Amino acid sequence: MPSPRNPQLNQHGELIHLLSLDRLPRDILTHILDTATSFVGMNEREVKKVPLLRGKSVFNLFFENSTRTRTTFDIAAKRLSADVFTLDIGRSSTSKGETLLDTVDNLSAMAADLFVVRHSQSGAPYLIAQHVAPHVHVVNAGDGWHSHPTQGLLDMYTIRHYKQDFSNLVVAIVGDVLHSRVARSDIHALKVLGCPEVRVVGPRTLAPAGFESMGTRVFDNLQEGIRDADVIIMLRLQNERMSGALLPSREEYFKTFGLTPEKLAWARPDAIVMHPGPINRGVEIDSAVADGPQAVILSQVAFGIAVRMAVMAIVAGNDA
Amino acid sequence: MPSPRNPQLNQHGELIHLLSLDRLPRDILTHILDTATSFVGMNEREVKKVPLLRGKSVFNLFFENSTRTRTTFDIAAKRLSADVFTLDIGRSSTSKGETLLDTVDNLSAMAADLFVVRHSQSGAPYLIAQHVAPHVHVVNAGDGWHSHPTQGLLDMYTIRHYKQDFSNLVVAIVGDVLHSRVARSDIHALKVLGCPEVRVVGPRTLAPAGFESMGTRVFDNLQEGIRDADVIIMLRLQNERMSGALLPSREEYFKTFGLTPEKLAWARPDAIVMHPGPINRGVEIDSAVADGPQAVILSQVAFGIAVRMAVMAIVAGNDA
Amino acid sequence: MPSPRNPQLNQHGELIHLLSLDRLPRDILTHILDTATSFVGMNEREVKKVPLLRGKSVFNLFFENSTRTRTTFDIAAKRLSADVFTLDIGRSSTSKGETLLDTVDNLSAMAADLFVVRHSQSGAPYLIAQHVAPHVHVVNAGDGWHSHPTQGLLDMYTIRHYKQDFSNLVVAIVGDVLHSRVARSDIHALKVLGCPEVRVVGPRTLAPAGFESMGTRVFDNLQEGIRDADVIIMLRLQNERMSGALLPSREEYFKTFGLTPEKLAWARPDAIVMHPGPINRGVEIDSAVADGPQAVILSQVAFGIAVRMAVMAIVAGNDA
Repeated sequence: MPSPRNPQLNQHGELIHLLSLDRLPRDILTHILDTATSFVGMNEREVKKVPLLRGKSVFNLFFENSTRTRTTFDIAAKRLSADVFTLDIGRSSTSKGETLLDTVDNLSAMAADLFVVRHSQSGAPYLIAQHVAPHVHVVNAGDGWHSHPTQGLLDMYTIRHYKQDFSNLVVAIVGDVLHSRVARSDIHALKVLGCPEVRVVGPRTLAPAGFESMGTRVFDNLQEGIRDADVIIMLRLQNERMSGALLPSREEYFKTFGLTPEKLAWARPDAIVMHPGPINRGVEIDSAVADGPQAVILSQVAFGIAVRMAVMAIVAGNDA
Repeated sequence: MPSPRNPQLNQHGELIHLLSLDRLPRDILTHILDTATSFVGMNEREVKKVPLLRGKSVFNLFFENSTRTRTTFDIAAKRLSADVFTLDIGRSSTSKGETLLDTVDNLSAMAADLFVVRHSQSGAPYLIAQHVAPHVHVVNAGDGWHSHPTQGLLDMYTIRHYKQDFSNLVVAIVGDVLHSRVARSDIHALKVLGCPEVRVVGPRTLAPAGFESMGTRVFDNLQEGIRDADVIIMLRLQNERMSGALLPSREEYFKTFGLTPEKLAWARPDAIVMHPGPINRGVEIDSAVADGPQAVILSQVAFGIAVRMAVMAIVAGNDA
Repeated sequence: MPSPRNPQLNQHGELIHLLSLDRLPRDILTHILDTATSFVGMNEREVKKVPLLRGKSVFNLFFENSTRTRTTFDIAAKRLSADVFTLDIGRSSTSKGETLLDTVDNLSAMAADLFVVRHSQSGAPYLIAQHVAPHVHVVNAGDGWHSHPTQGLLDMYTIRHYKQDFSNLVVAIVGDVLHSRVARSDIHALKVLGCPEVRVVGPRTLAPAGFESMGTRVFDNLQEGIRDADVIIMLRLQNERMSGALLPSREEYFKTFGLTPEKLAWARPDAIVMHPGPINRGVEIDSAVADGPQAVILSQVAFGIAVRMAVMAIVAGNDA
């Protein structure tokens, strides 16, 4: 039974907000993935629209800029027939000294049904969810280093699509795990869905041993880390890490942790290679791998639309 | 009878543009408020859309940035099923030296039906309205210090909603009246709707005695100004006023004119507190008032959508 | 028969992308213009929408900013009932080092149906068209100095509307032909549609004799260049040309090549004056001409919407 204090669930245990994957029960995760399946097929159809959110108002609140993620939510909401309003928050009332919660109150008064929130501070979507009226829903589109739950869900969808079952998988997450909200969301979801072995691979500075407390095995050697892996999730190396003391150079990083065809051979022959995008060719991943037969990076993008449609359709159907 | 030269009305006295409230007859104001009532209820419904403007093209022309106001018009237009096009004018042809009227001509040629215009110069919406073809409509979303008619209308809607009738009310407008287009629109509308006593309250520098010629009573003492008031409209104190010689300091202003629960007790016990937003907590209004039982600030926001829907639906239904 | 290597046509010779007018056969051009005719009438109707692209996703990829052109495509796509997604590319993944083709791959994976591409580099739309999946279509909205095919088509529509037939026309293109993608597109289309005399008129530095190889006559004297012309297409003088060594001054240019009523009298009395906009009053064109009875500049704008609707409807109906 979910704890009644989990703000993502109503008293019937139904999903009303998507804030983080770390306290979501397995049946909720599975329900989202199953719902997404129906939307994946829809993208092949002539008319890529269903009326599930017709007449609803979805507000994209991107306090931190991310054209890519914002676009995927925009597409998902419009394919559900919602009206979508994107707020360029940097130029809006917030810059006039209005508080975050006053902004949300005002938008709620405009009869918002669903907020998609991206914020550089961990916890901002939680704060908003606790504040809105019972019929209003919040979906976290990434908060600080904390969580990026729809990315985690689309990763799970992708793994399930290619591997069917989580119960025998070895999944390796490679790169700057420390600063990655994607990695945190993936680790939580993999554990809940029954993945027996999740590995974290990277330089000690970026994948510290502390991750072992999350139930993962930590490696600072790529060969050991991806040996016999079924799934390799490569993380994007942020350029700004390079300027600090955390890493030597892009060339050095590529030499040690960049995924080339030669290194990929250490994993299982049918291993899939994932990446949340946008990829840095020649930094964390070699073009021969990114464009090769084991990469499923563009499938992730396609599944991402379907997963976001599923999340929005599910939360909008449940009341607090 | 309205003067035939009033550019807002056609020869039958019907509203074709909304430019300013100062020459609108009482029956037009009342018709807008009555029409808005039907849209207020709609915001509670599952599907918040009516097809009144289906297939029409609404252009948001915001020569002056205002995310909040732009969003409310965007929402209102989409709930009427219009197609909405928002022009980032700063980056468009205007910056290439094109004149305002050439821009409007070009957009008209793209089969615009309705322009929503925000401009830093008073009179710009009038200029556009006199220039467009007979089937094209203009709604002023704020011009200079001159007028902000939809804000005035939503204030009237709010007052009527809570007080039913204007004929016995004391309404006090508090703050920087001098620079407020909201205040001007409110004063005009209150007079036309029969409010017997409109008071203007603020420092002499911001609420000069000249306002008495508009039929208001001017006070520079808050206690006298809001004594026995039924409605208090607090204005936002623009930060830029502080840097000039017009006012001492934020702290000083709050001490003298900031509305606290103690000062609010000078008004009638059932007085409502309004504010056009965004509020400056601790400057013109205390949080205990803003979040208290007499504040109707968020109702104003909700009514604002309905009023803007009413205005657009009415003008679009009348031809020049 | 079109060459099978023309990437704009499928093996049946049907239009699948619109990249450039220079290799399009006459029957394709005529088919676009004929299709546009039906949409021109639609703009007069109450409901300006047809369901031809309902449920389709159109992506506006403007790597180079152009509010005006972007808006016309936005309007055209929405009147065809498409969902339109506009990417502010400067702020998106491209600025994170993602390649153009990776961006396109990602957007394709989101189930894009049609890309409208504006790019400062000639050939970018070609590159994208060769890269996308068979069911995805590309429309060039201007690339470098190379081509602006929808502008060329709307110019052809305008000429045909006023002059019915190309077979006896003298068309003069006046101004900075060297840097004009509009001029290149117009010249190609006029030749294909059977116009017997296309003239290029401007200072030697901007309309060099090399244009004669395109089948035009080149003039550096306005009087000779527009004598007895049926159609005069005035080009916009970009301000940046002035700062270089190519031209003396705006005043000097206006004196020599600016179109005044007196100079317009050199052309045929029923000559029409066109301009791609935005116009520079007092630089390349005098206000008395721009606002006079022979100017058809605003008709061009109106026809531009219809032509873009026609192009999108046609390519979306054909598969590779």
